[in-house]
Amino acid sequence: MEPPATGLDAALGFELLDLAEDRARGRFEVTDAVRQPAGIVHGGAYAAMAETLASAATHVHVREAGEAAMGQSNLTSFMRPVSGGCVHAEARRRHRGRTSWVWEVDFTDDEGRLCATSRVTLAVRPVPQRP
Amino acid sequence: MEPPATGLDAALGFELLDLAEDRARGRFEVTDAVRQPAGIVHGGAYAAMAETLASAATHVHVREAGEAAMGQSNLTSFMRPVSGGCVHAEARRRHRGRTSWVWEVDFTDDEGRLCATSRVTLAVRPVPQRP
Amino acid sequence: MEPPATGLDAALGFELLDLAEDRARGRFEVTDAVRQPAGIVHGGAYAAMAETLASAATHVHVREAGEAAMGQSNLTSFMRPVSGGCVHAEARRRHRGRTSWVWEVDFTDDEGRLCATSRVTLAVRPVPQRP
Amino acid sequence: MEPPATGLDAALGFELLDLAEDRARGRFEVTDAVRQPAGIVHGGAYAAMAETLASAATHVHVREAGEAAMGQSNLTSFMRPVSGGCVHAEARRRHRGRTSWVWEVDFTDDEGRLCATSRVTLAVRPVPQRP
Repeated sequence: MEPPATGLDAALGFELLDLAEDRARGRFEVTDAVRQPAGIVHGGAYAAMAETLASAATHVHVREAGEAAMGQSNLTSFMRPVSGGCVHAEARRRHRGRTSWVWEVDFTDDEGRLCATSRVTLAVRPVPQRP
Repeated sequence: MEPPATGLDAALGFELLDLAEDRARGRFEVTDAVRQPAGIVHGGAYAAMAETLASAATHVHVREAGEAAMGQSNLTSFMRPVSGGCVHAEARRRHRGRTSWVWEVDFTDDEGRLCATSRVTLAVRPVPQRP
Repeated sequence: MEPPATGLDAALGFELLDLAEDRARGRFEVTDAVRQPAGIVHGGAYAAMAETLASAATHVHVREAGEAAMGQSNLTSFMRPVSGGCVHAEARRRHRGRTSWVWEVDFTDDEGRLCATSRVTLAVRPVPQRP
Repeated sequence: MEPPATGLDAALGFELLDLAEDRARGRFEVTDAVRQPAGIVHGGAYAAMAETLASAATHVHVREAGEAAMGQSNLTSFMRPVSGGCVHAEARRRHRGRTSWVWEVDFTDDEGRLCATSRVTLAVRPVPQRP
């Protein structure tokens, strides 16, 4: 549904599946690119996917107003190690303020068990106009 | 200093430079693999490096006691976008409890300006013995 | 429903309304005791109520197993200032692990608008036995 | 040094000792007003003191520019229970951006041991002009 991923999203194999104004979904396969040395999913992979989903969904909706979204903070809590299959991410917008948006992103494994959860805060600011 | 990186650490080009008991240092170059679509360093790259440094440094020091470290939470705050050069990470242990360790990780650009900061909490638990 | 509040809970006028195993509810009136100098609810009042609800609900359910709950971290995000009426808190357990429980607590004003949200992580440990 | 505390600051017995532009100090005595039911300092007391110090110090310095500071998020991690004496808070500014300031606040007991640490993010915005 989205143009091919580039950058970190491509390096870690992230797929964006849906970007509505107040919901977004994505997923990644548990390949070596998202593993830490013990073989489970690296905590940074969850944090990165949360950042990607929240930023992309916010961006799509604020750019029409000439604004840009910029990550401000990301708190990810890890509940359950995952070592194979896919990790499924579901983002839900919790706040849409004039200058900041807040998202919660839940991660589940193929059995639907909660593995991690993130809260992402984005600053929304006018894009500087170029003359 | 460390064995060659594997997994996510390799995919994002992370280098570990030093792993003392209460300090750790690492760095990554700003290549495409750590960028988000607007060309700056992806927030998840900072969060991931913080997780890597804190986990690796804790692991080295608890494994002698037959214990393992497991990421529990990671709060990363983003202060300043970086679009080139290297990102330098310096981790400082703030707490060494019986069952959890807490690290703060500061990220600076090549000019030494603070770009992001993370607080990483790790659970420390006995490694299950194999008969 | 609960015995009279003591300590900080009494000082800030917290009421606990319900403590189920995976849900908890409470509330406080916006009196001077919870205000900051500009007249709105002090951020610490939300953080404290989240801590109270999550700790109390976890405690009720782990003490039967001879365990105790101890606050480990609390992230509170503030969305909307409140200057009067009541603040209503609703806690939802997100994770029940062997050694940690995670709660999300939403705060709404009398119009049901989201004002703040907290994520509270508690360590669950055996209570030391007294001989 | 400061005018007498009001509101939550007074209810919990907070003292502000110093408010420089990039450092601030405060303290509170461990009275019943800051205790949770088990007799130790309530986690919300640390979070509240961090919020008070960071907000007050930011406020003093941005109001000259016609701006106001508003709490955006507060992450407090608890390391060591305190049951008596005083809790000493030391805040250090980590970031001074155009639209947000970030503070770290460390809490120590009378023996100088780290008991808790907070990261507080404040939004800085122009104060609406009254005609």
